[in-house]
Amino acid sequence: MRVLVTGAAGMIGRKLAERLARDGKVAGKPISALDLHDIVAPLAPDASFECSSFTGDLSDAAQVSALIGRSPDIVFHLAGVVSGEAESNFDLGYRVNMDGTRALFDAIRLSPKVPRVVFSSSIAVFGGPFPDIIPDDFHTVPLSSYGTQKLISEALLTDYTRRGFMDGIGIRLPTICVRPGKANKAASSFFSGIIREPLAGMEAVLPVPRSVVHTNASPRSAVGFLIHAAGLDGEAIGPRRCLNMPGIAVTVGEQIEALERIAGSKVVSLIREEPDEAVWALVKNWPTRFEAKRARELGFVAETSFDDIIKIHIEEELGGRVA
Amino acid sequence: MRVLVTGAAGMIGRKLAERLARDGKVAGKPISALDLHDIVAPLAPDASFECSSFTGDLSDAAQVSALIGRSPDIVFHLAGVVSGEAESNFDLGYRVNMDGTRALFDAIRLSPKVPRVVFSSSIAVFGGPFPDIIPDDFHTVPLSSYGTQKLISEALLTDYTRRGFMDGIGIRLPTICVRPGKANKAASSFFSGIIREPLAGMEAVLPVPRSVVHTNASPRSAVGFLIHAAGLDGEAIGPRRCLNMPGIAVTVGEQIEALERIAGSKVVSLIREEPDEAVWALVKNWPTRFEAKRARELGFVAETSFDDIIKIHIEEELGGRVA
Repeated sequence: MRVLVTGAAGMIGRKLAERLARDGKVAGKPISALDLHDIVAPLAPDASFECSSFTGDLSDAAQVSALIGRSPDIVFHLAGVVSGEAESNFDLGYRVNMDGTRALFDAIRLSPKVPRVVFSSSIAVFGGPFPDIIPDDFHTVPLSSYGTQKLISEALLTDYTRRGFMDGIGIRLPTICVRPGKANKAASSFFSGIIREPLAGMEAVLPVPRSVVHTNASPRSAVGFLIHAAGLDGEAIGPRRCLNMPGIAVTVGEQIEALERIAGSKVVSLIREEPDEAVWALVKNWPTRFEAKRARELGFVAETSFDDIIKIHIEEELGGRVA
Repeated sequence: MRVLVTGAAGMIGRKLAERLARDGKVAGKPISALDLHDIVAPLAPDASFECSSFTGDLSDAAQVSALIGRSPDIVFHLAGVVSGEAESNFDLGYRVNMDGTRALFDAIRLSPKVPRVVFSSSIAVFGGPFPDIIPDDFHTVPLSSYGTQKLISEALLTDYTRRGFMDGIGIRLPTICVRPGKANKAASSFFSGIIREPLAGMEAVLPVPRSVVHTNASPRSAVGFLIHAAGLDGEAIGPRRCLNMPGIAVTVGEQIEALERIAGSKVVSLIREEPDEAVWALVKNWPTRFEAKRARELGFVAETSFDDIIKIHIEEELGGRVA
């Protein structure tokens, strides 16, 4: 199996490449080669198979054609401009997230091969108001340009699959928590920050009420979703190719209780409640709980407690130790 | 008010232009000029205001810029390749229905004006399986390239409106019945054919069981939806800019009963039942009934009996007389 990963220098991309290297196989077959692409040079993992890195702009048709010309059996399409940037830079977001995805899908359409394409979509395809639990057949009316671009990419994936150009699956990721690295300016940053910073002995700000409910999955689960999607039987998925992923829905208060159970009250005392009206205005319109019935039936698995999400972070990012 | 109509040579476009000429106003204000555009020369109606006709390809950015450069206050965007053609000619469908719409919306985005844009979408954005009554918040997973292109256009309209580039409304038309003119090769053609042909003294074939349920609105209602959308308060619509239009859901059997009431049993005897497995395979996956709650609350009105739909056809197309 030749595997292509776009967005391979990103957090999920790196972890996916490492997992593929560790497993040595995907969709039940041995991996013969791994092609990694991103706008900045992706790091190749230590692997028993050939790894190649490519750097460039995905919306450049010639570049995309060259990647697809290498005839991948599985394409993990993770590349994209993040939500904040897609909102602040209209042209960049549409060029990369919409035109880039279309260029990739068109290169596949015009190639003789029909690869499995796993596309990392987002719950940003949904916009409020929401029911308490969002059903699988809830309409997708995004409230951001990022969500719009993801939705358009999903629509292309579904039609190109129906027409037999590729064998696509879109997976709508919930909030990935705990994100390693530094806080960023995303309004969702605090969901990871209130766990990550105290565990590292640093103060963290909580800008919203503890009653806020949000669905989370670990970076390990996100990679698990991608790997599982790569091996699914297309017939079993049917014509609705984009799936809401499972996750663990908890309140911020429950997140903090889990942190206290695992790391103690001293760590938790590093969380400072500092209400931020601007963040709250955004967060209160975000989706809370997902039914994710189809995904669960198709075998996608996420954590079942927020404790596990914290433990995975400690294991993967902190060498198993709390500061 | 300067008004632009794309797809103005089509059946709905022509009827819309005639209605605008007759009313002399739209959205409560007098019309000063009407610009009509299509791939074939649109006929200008007799009107008290200036009418201009333009012929060309909507996916040509320069052409679209010139039309938007005339600074319309209201744009009725009806242009598009029909479903059968979008399915048989992949490139044409995406070029006209997706790229053409995007070119139009981008020209508006780059212009100083923020016009009301009324976009004729379609219930083809939905794909089965369906619940008995399709709620307003049912997900949009098309089963055709045409439906995909309409969905993508809707997503752009919603995002461009949210960002303040335009003030868009998408209206999802049900089956328009009775379509005047000749039968075409669309699988849905018989819904109009079984009424239109017998009324003209000609035989018609019914390829599906009489139990098939379908939602219909007359061409007059379709024009009414467009006119009503042009005058709606954007605030009242909210962020979900695309609406399922109301219609009258009837079985084919009820269609035929209505025809008998209006035109007698001799006319009805011209309908020949001739089951067609290929047509049935398509039709059985089509949406049947729509809730259309939001549209009704916003004042969109359709016929309430199929009898009325037949009477409108006789009035508008047959000079009030049955052959």
